[in-house]
Amino acid sequence: MTDSAQDGGASPRRVRVGVVGASGYSGEELVRLLLGHPHVELSAVTSRQYAGQTVAQVFPRFSSHPGARALVFSEPRAEVLAREADVIFLALPHGVAAEYAVPLVQLGCRVIDLSADFRLRRREVYQEFYGHPHPAPEMLSQAVYGLPELYRERIRDATLVAAAGCYPTGVLVPWVPLLRAGLIRPEGLVADALSGVSGAGRKAELDYLFVECNESLRPYAVPKHRHLSEIEQELSVAAGQSVVIQFTPHLVPVNRGILTTLYAMPVAEVRDAAGAAKLAEAVGACYEAAYGQEPFVRRLSGKALPDTKNVVGTNQIELAWRADPRTGRLLVMSAEDNIVKGASGQALQCLNLMCGYPETAGLL
Amino acid sequence: MTDSAQDGGASPRRVRVGVVGASGYSGEELVRLLLGHPHVELSAVTSRQYAGQTVAQVFPRFSSHPGARALVFSEPRAEVLAREADVIFLALPHGVAAEYAVPLVQLGCRVIDLSADFRLRRREVYQEFYGHPHPAPEMLSQAVYGLPELYRERIRDATLVAAAGCYPTGVLVPWVPLLRAGLIRPEGLVADALSGVSGAGRKAELDYLFVECNESLRPYAVPKHRHLSEIEQELSVAAGQSVVIQFTPHLVPVNRGILTTLYAMPVAEVRDAAGAAKLAEAVGACYEAAYGQEPFVRRLSGKALPDTKNVVGTNQIELAWRADPRTGRLLVMSAEDNIVKGASGQALQCLNLMCGYPETAGLL
Amino acid sequence: MTDSAQDGGASPRRVRVGVVGASGYSGEELVRLLLGHPHVELSAVTSRQYAGQTVAQVFPRFSSHPGARALVFSEPRAEVLAREADVIFLALPHGVAAEYAVPLVQLGCRVIDLSADFRLRRREVYQEFYGHPHPAPEMLSQAVYGLPELYRERIRDATLVAAAGCYPTGVLVPWVPLLRAGLIRPEGLVADALSGVSGAGRKAELDYLFVECNESLRPYAVPKHRHLSEIEQELSVAAGQSVVIQFTPHLVPVNRGILTTLYAMPVAEVRDAAGAAKLAEAVGACYEAAYGQEPFVRRLSGKALPDTKNVVGTNQIELAWRADPRTGRLLVMSAEDNIVKGASGQALQCLNLMCGYPETAGLL
Amino acid sequence: MTDSAQDGGASPRRVRVGVVGASGYSGEELVRLLLGHPHVELSAVTSRQYAGQTVAQVFPRFSSHPGARALVFSEPRAEVLAREADVIFLALPHGVAAEYAVPLVQLGCRVIDLSADFRLRRREVYQEFYGHPHPAPEMLSQAVYGLPELYRERIRDATLVAAAGCYPTGVLVPWVPLLRAGLIRPEGLVADALSGVSGAGRKAELDYLFVECNESLRPYAVPKHRHLSEIEQELSVAAGQSVVIQFTPHLVPVNRGILTTLYAMPVAEVRDAAGAAKLAEAVGACYEAAYGQEPFVRRLSGKALPDTKNVVGTNQIELAWRADPRTGRLLVMSAEDNIVKGASGQALQCLNLMCGYPETAGLL
Repeated sequence: MTDSAQDGGASPRRVRVGVVGASGYSGEELVRLLLGHPHVELSAVTSRQYAGQTVAQVFPRFSSHPGARALVFSEPRAEVLAREADVIFLALPHGVAAEYAVPLVQLGCRVIDLSADFRLRRREVYQEFYGHPHPAPEMLSQAVYGLPELYRERIRDATLVAAAGCYPTGVLVPWVPLLRAGLIRPEGLVADALSGVSGAGRKAELDYLFVECNESLRPYAVPKHRHLSEIEQELSVAAGQSVVIQFTPHLVPVNRGILTTLYAMPVAEVRDAAGAAKLAEAVGACYEAAYGQEPFVRRLSGKALPDTKNVVGTNQIELAWRADPRTGRLLVMSAEDNIVKGASGQALQCLNLMCGYPETAGLL
Repeated sequence: MTDSAQDGGASPRRVRVGVVGASGYSGEELVRLLLGHPHVELSAVTSRQYAGQTVAQVFPRFSSHPGARALVFSEPRAEVLAREADVIFLALPHGVAAEYAVPLVQLGCRVIDLSADFRLRRREVYQEFYGHPHPAPEMLSQAVYGLPELYRERIRDATLVAAAGCYPTGVLVPWVPLLRAGLIRPEGLVADALSGVSGAGRKAELDYLFVECNESLRPYAVPKHRHLSEIEQELSVAAGQSVVIQFTPHLVPVNRGILTTLYAMPVAEVRDAAGAAKLAEAVGACYEAAYGQEPFVRRLSGKALPDTKNVVGTNQIELAWRADPRTGRLLVMSAEDNIVKGASGQALQCLNLMCGYPETAGLL
Repeated sequence: MTDSAQDGGASPRRVRVGVVGASGYSGEELVRLLLGHPHVELSAVTSRQYAGQTVAQVFPRFSSHPGARALVFSEPRAEVLAREADVIFLALPHGVAAEYAVPLVQLGCRVIDLSADFRLRRREVYQEFYGHPHPAPEMLSQAVYGLPELYRERIRDATLVAAAGCYPTGVLVPWVPLLRAGLIRPEGLVADALSGVSGAGRKAELDYLFVECNESLRPYAVPKHRHLSEIEQELSVAAGQSVVIQFTPHLVPVNRGILTTLYAMPVAEVRDAAGAAKLAEAVGACYEAAYGQEPFVRRLSGKALPDTKNVVGTNQIELAWRADPRTGRLLVMSAEDNIVKGASGQALQCLNLMCGYPETAGLL
Repeated sequence: MTDSAQDGGASPRRVRVGVVGASGYSGEELVRLLLGHPHVELSAVTSRQYAGQTVAQVFPRFSSHPGARALVFSEPRAEVLAREADVIFLALPHGVAAEYAVPLVQLGCRVIDLSADFRLRRREVYQEFYGHPHPAPEMLSQAVYGLPELYRERIRDATLVAAAGCYPTGVLVPWVPLLRAGLIRPEGLVADALSGVSGAGRKAELDYLFVECNESLRPYAVPKHRHLSEIEQELSVAAGQSVVIQFTPHLVPVNRGILTTLYAMPVAEVRDAAGAAKLAEAVGACYEAAYGQEPFVRRLSGKALPDTKNVVGTNQIELAWRADPRTGRLLVMSAEDNIVKGASGQALQCLNLMCGYPETAGLL
């Protein structure tokens, strides 16, 4: 889809963009989105595995696009990339991403990293959750957490953006405004999430074979998934106090999509139906204030509940909420595409901010 | 599978069993299990839609079985059924089931009802959750809740058994022993469940079309699903006080299976890793005491977590638990086949108890 | 994705486009494609069921798009549509489509019909395959078969285009050039096709429930599927003689995609590996001549074989071919998205031709 | 399911059965079937990977069964196996199976091999299709092709049975009686097959990842799949002349099941509807004669067509046929479970014959 003309005056020169590690699911989606972007030029893609082949050869689905037939995968080398592109997306495993981010930033590129390497503010937390020392702790302070709905202004000027993770997006977009507004208590939070199998990456492991995933429902990484680190960091910022939550991811047989169900206790106790209605209204007003102008946050009304099939392939996140008069609890549910709003679309939304493009450019 | 000889001496005459409403998913599964049962004779099946056809014609997958080729579907009529069968399974919608249960019991049959009609002790709760007056309130007191792991002895002598629901099984088996033992607090309980689409029954509705379910993840019936009524009833009995819980079901694209993730606070506060280890051990001991001899409750050890693919097609329920030192919470996860342990297998397990057969007969 | 600027000079006024019957899978996809099209304005959508709601309400996935929030579904009325749009897409069942096509053409609109109503040249064939008299036989002669790879020039000037069916596209694109070139014999042709469930439309029928389709593989409409009528009509034109083929569709559990495997005997007999190699080369040359400049026909080389996942969501059709030295036969395999190249994308490709836009506009 | 008592007098001692290579999908299914078999004792299972663990640990779904809790996987060693079991199933890759079959037969065991090692009569054909010299050509003459519907009597007395492959079963059961009866011509045969992903085995390869298979339809091994060797061997025997066929397998996103669509020209030419009806009748009579007493061959009547969901989990194969008056061709369609009738169930059916058990024992 395109937003073409209505985006206003084109920049004099298209920004040149590179993707490092374009052979995984997030990298492929970045290539798809960038080929369709009205204001950027996809000028470099790298992959050790595919070096020498065109994008059209590696990803035949893009082969109708002239750009995909012209562009050739190269070996990832920072000096070359810095000459070929102004902004670089890193779609690499954590730990590896930092190896490229450091020289690329030094060489003057702006970097949008899709890994976890620069999402945490404190190196100790990184070590605790990722099991090895942070590879470039000196850069943590300049990295901006790449969730535009929370950090739009800081992203505009950032040199290094750490695009938010897939699960964190599904938790933070619903809860941060409520914590900021003091509507929910920062204690006792429970987040229960379901993810499609693409979240595991393109890895040849028995656990992710078709026959092992199809007709299978299973929790994993219980009770301490790595994404807890960035979720709790950002919830703590929002709450103004340290927040620890319960988070349980489940693997379910869809290609894409994350559905998150969130349980919180409101600050103002709910004792009956009237109280529940009042809470639901307050939450709605809070979301209206926070997201009323957001192009990618869809607040459902009436009886509608989130469904990943309504967001897959888009950069949207759907929200619905219910105050339960029986338990006094506030439920919020969110749905997103883990590869788009949870990864590549979000990263592109950051690029649009960094380059002064309409935020929806290439994402409608 | 068979348990044949090791079940010990066969009864002099096979018990004759009937299934009313055998055209849905649960009814079909009952037929499958009963055809393979070593000690019973499937003597009657009814279905308005299929009356006059053989079981083999309606369910070709059973057509290798001589019994399926011989048995003909009839119209459901209580007097006829009472002559043809000693025990009757009712696989009918709630509200309709009671219409058959009343005359069948009066005519001397033992009845195992798979609907919700006789699961609740109080007619007011039925009306609240099912939206109409209870059709036979005078029989509520004699019905036994058909969850053998909780009510084995009462089921043996029951005339009317209300087989436990699919979601309730996945919640009650994990939590009841912990509440009975005073290990978890009865307040603040949260149950988050994922169910395969067969749980919606064989209904021609747009919401359950392949294209609408495949690649879709969605919550539903939030926040007050009907099964809450029986879940809370039984948890309250176990806790010795009124229990209200949060319960969120989700529809996910598998044919069968329910995965339930349960969040509770322990009575003895957990403050650190040592406390968590101690709690996990206490829970393990509690389950060992409660389920050590149960043939269908599998307690996972080590790093294993439940996966519906390990229980689909079986009458088993898998359990794993984790005490979280970060949050102080106890997580229990369960996996079951919603049509077997959550419906037809459970009902057959009840029949085995009622008839004095080995409990695993026809279920291995 | 967009083709924006490189499409050359924009038309002075955007062509206004309407979609009648926008609530099915093809209609929804048309809306998606038209919202993203750089040169047209989606000015009218109709649906009895959704009249009064915005496109964003009915299809939340498009709600980020300003156009989807502004446009309201109306009741389908030809006179109103003729004022609101210059070109009308009909996404209606066969039989019903003609009821709208006739007045719309009379009122001066150009019409692109996605149903089968105007695909056949002879009313007798329509009656034979569709079971009722043709509703507007007088218009058959002016309709153009909407398969741009075969009828590009005629489509440019057409007033009424009958977009080719999904199965026919998967058969005709591979076989027509070979028949035209005299490379394969017009006798003994066999086409075996697999289709995703969206091909059955959004209909609440038991056969298309998730549980009935998931883990199911089945042929249907054997041996005389309705699409045979247009397939044979067009193959006969290509061969210059009457062609009758064998065609077997199968329903398989994917949302989208058609995979077609085609068996033909070459005119020049293949007796050994050298002969097979020569035939494969001749077929390659024939396809190069026919499709070398086609933006949406991808000819696979080397060991690659078609896979629907490479074309789903795109307007492409993938082709691969093998000459079998053992049997002397020529196999061609094609893959397409039944809703895009097999329906809505194809229809949009026709619109691009009719309006003088680049053929790939809105389809990259 | 069980057939228990009605199978007649039990043997004085249960036959002891071993499974070599029990960690793949076929091996797991063999274990499932053998644990439920009324007349055999599963006395040995081997797997390099799982040696030392119980069957219940490796396959938790069987853990309710006492036998699964007692039996421990051991390293595969022929001398030990020969002491522990009377009959051995080999569920190993081709090439490896022969290494065990040779010593086991020499040590007096009866062997049922699920690999392709002993299915071909001529070592040259093995080398052509499997790419290496046959590992034990001297044993080819004593092996019996394990398709009970074709070779029942020879299987009874066999020492070495080569259970028929999954695709061959779906082709041979439909076509062999028709060729034997001279109803179809042995030239020009085309077989088009769809297989679930379990057919690829439990292998950690990118091609079989969930995301790569789900929503994917693709042909493979075109035009010379290995199974052609045994298919053509057996069709040639049936026809009394050398038969070469076209065979195209496709990978589709189901766990289990093979659907085969078969195209043949009848010997007696069909020119019109009457001729088609006559041919269909003759085929029906031929199948009645060939399979009227077969417990596992289901011939569909009326409008019914095969559907893998009706046979998955069973040892059945469904058949339907249509004579096409338009093309003069005879279509036969078959559906089977590739792991049961296509592998482990078929092998067990052979064991029942070899041991004098009712053929359906353990398979109802």
